[in-house]
Amino acid sequence: MRIGEFELITTDPDTAARRGVLHTAHGEIHTPLFMPVGTRATVKGMLPSRLRELGAQTILSNTYHLFLRPGTDIIEEAGGLRSFMGWDGTVLTDSGGFQVFSLADTVKVTDDGVAFNSILDGAKHFWTPEDNVAIQEQLGADIFMQLDQCPPYPAEKETVATAVRRSAQWARRCADARKREDQLLFGIVQGGVFADLRAESIERLVEVGFPGYGIGGYSVGEPHEMMLESLEPVCGLLPSDQPRYLMGVGNPTTILRAVALGVDMFDCVLPTRTARLGTAFSSEGRLNLRNARFARDTGPLDPECACPTCATYPRSYLRHLVTTKEMLGAILLTEHNLFYLLDLTRRAREAIEEHRYADFLARWLNSPAAADY
Amino acid sequence: MRIGEFELITTDPDTAARRGVLHTAHGEIHTPLFMPVGTRATVKGMLPSRLRELGAQTILSNTYHLFLRPGTDIIEEAGGLRSFMGWDGTVLTDSGGFQVFSLADTVKVTDDGVAFNSILDGAKHFWTPEDNVAIQEQLGADIFMQLDQCPPYPAEKETVATAVRRSAQWARRCADARKREDQLLFGIVQGGVFADLRAESIERLVEVGFPGYGIGGYSVGEPHEMMLESLEPVCGLLPSDQPRYLMGVGNPTTILRAVALGVDMFDCVLPTRTARLGTAFSSEGRLNLRNARFARDTGPLDPECACPTCATYPRSYLRHLVTTKEMLGAILLTEHNLFYLLDLTRRAREAIEEHRYADFLARWLNSPAAADY
Repeated sequence: MRIGEFELITTDPDTAARRGVLHTAHGEIHTPLFMPVGTRATVKGMLPSRLRELGAQTILSNTYHLFLRPGTDIIEEAGGLRSFMGWDGTVLTDSGGFQVFSLADTVKVTDDGVAFNSILDGAKHFWTPEDNVAIQEQLGADIFMQLDQCPPYPAEKETVATAVRRSAQWARRCADARKREDQLLFGIVQGGVFADLRAESIERLVEVGFPGYGIGGYSVGEPHEMMLESLEPVCGLLPSDQPRYLMGVGNPTTILRAVALGVDMFDCVLPTRTARLGTAFSSEGRLNLRNARFARDTGPLDPECACPTCATYPRSYLRHLVTTKEMLGAILLTEHNLFYLLDLTRRAREAIEEHRYADFLARWLNSPAAADY
Repeated sequence: MRIGEFELITTDPDTAARRGVLHTAHGEIHTPLFMPVGTRATVKGMLPSRLRELGAQTILSNTYHLFLRPGTDIIEEAGGLRSFMGWDGTVLTDSGGFQVFSLADTVKVTDDGVAFNSILDGAKHFWTPEDNVAIQEQLGADIFMQLDQCPPYPAEKETVATAVRRSAQWARRCADARKREDQLLFGIVQGGVFADLRAESIERLVEVGFPGYGIGGYSVGEPHEMMLESLEPVCGLLPSDQPRYLMGVGNPTTILRAVALGVDMFDCVLPTRTARLGTAFSSEGRLNLRNARFARDTGPLDPECACPTCATYPRSYLRHLVTTKEMLGAILLTEHNLFYLLDLTRRAREAIEEHRYADFLARWLNSPAAADY
């Protein structure tokens, strides 16, 4: 198989859900999939071997953070992100655009590129789309994302329109600047909640042509209902034979609903960040392990879960670890939450293969777990 | 084999080193051994399954900390420490005496017992030796230690003598208070650097009779040379057919020298605590991973080490994790440092079996690693 080829194994007869395989330089990616986030080239507290056991296929890392520290040249010298972080699976890097626009104190964007200050030491940096491609080629991920401009939500239509056009120009410049053949560059759809701008964005990107498309501009604040409404026409306009990646979404219900609309890839810090705060996903909904009601509870975290945490430890131990701020508490809840989402998407793939995704989704939406998201 | 039986497989012909097996309710403990410390029922950042893979046999946990939080009744309800912490190996608990005397603001000791305040909330507690046995029976470790009085170093001989006599009385009361048959109670030798007091302490303890003996009163401040000097007569006076446990010692050189004098068991927070501070044991001596010289170093942490950390990650990655305070940095260095000590003691056992311990020790003392301890 050629790198970048996206095989559609089957599509669901009653929804727009698809079961696919994306071929990359370091193996197959089975979709739909959830990608754990390893911001600084580490999924916090997780051994790479353990991530494999939990079912992770692809780790997402953040170019912005790695560019500032340790520096992308250091990662290149180690042989790229996979060797640097000891991960034998596939890797995706975002461009860092989202962090530039959301984290930096002072951002100045022109058609040429984006000027920003480091959150670490205030140092000034300037990225053209070409610079950003060179930086992401140093990181060497299997998939990398174009530099785009992310307007905040809510934004005036005029602001969003400018971002759409500029991002489309940058998409072409990123595509032209590429030097490596073993990496896949994805374009990113912008346009916020404006249907005509989304359509324009897609038209311009498809003209350039990419092996996959990120759907961006959602994670900056829109309510999930609005996002899902505008997602249906977006999926309708995107090429059917390339993967679609809804960036920054990790809510189980939103993932499963977006899969029904034809989305293939997801990433989010939600499962890992909430775990570190002591909250576990479960078949009963979210559980806050700090709660005193778990102090003497010798039952498993989630009786319906097959993860190692649920198989091994009583709730009273997990509460003890969380309340005493022991590292192992964050580790065990992170393992559980990641398994929860990875297993949910694995079961979604199975349901699509067996042409019963509509039923799978309906059962989820009626479950006590879904009520909590 | 009977619980508590200590088989001496062989003794080294040129030193007093012994290769033994202690039989406990949950399996054999092969000596000499190093026991990782899991203060609050967790070796910080370590999954129990991973500790097994690294070669850990026995985990030490601290009664003082567990008594205050979550409470030993909660651990008993979960089925004891092993079930609570999901560890299928053996467990040893200290009495908490050491922490009472070193951590509490106000300690008042009488022949009856010890009154102290909680470091968490100042609450007043009082332990008789009998109370302490009941508490440690709730924890249910395979081996537990008598409550003793630990005088600080340096201390007047009179103070040490009082502690020796009181600890010996408490040893008898602990032995008499026991209700469970599946746990081994060890007495603790006191006496500081005073040879006659050490001898008196041993005589009194042996009169009671224990399946093993802790050697205490050393970790409160004596220089290692003084400790080693006084250790030889202590080992000479202790029964040869029971294990000897030098409490709180984890320096590799001191461990190997003490093994040559006939010590069988060790524990210390040194490997785990220094790991969390960014320092790795290595064949070149200690390495501080914060050092800028590792920023672009793509070599393994220790080329002579067979642990998963050394097999997988470049030094530049470990430095990145340590300097960005990522949990994984502490985890990977902890794994490495524990493997280092567990592997060193495994090789010590092998050397004793092959009657070449004197040579093994001499090689260690001449190595670059030893120079750093």
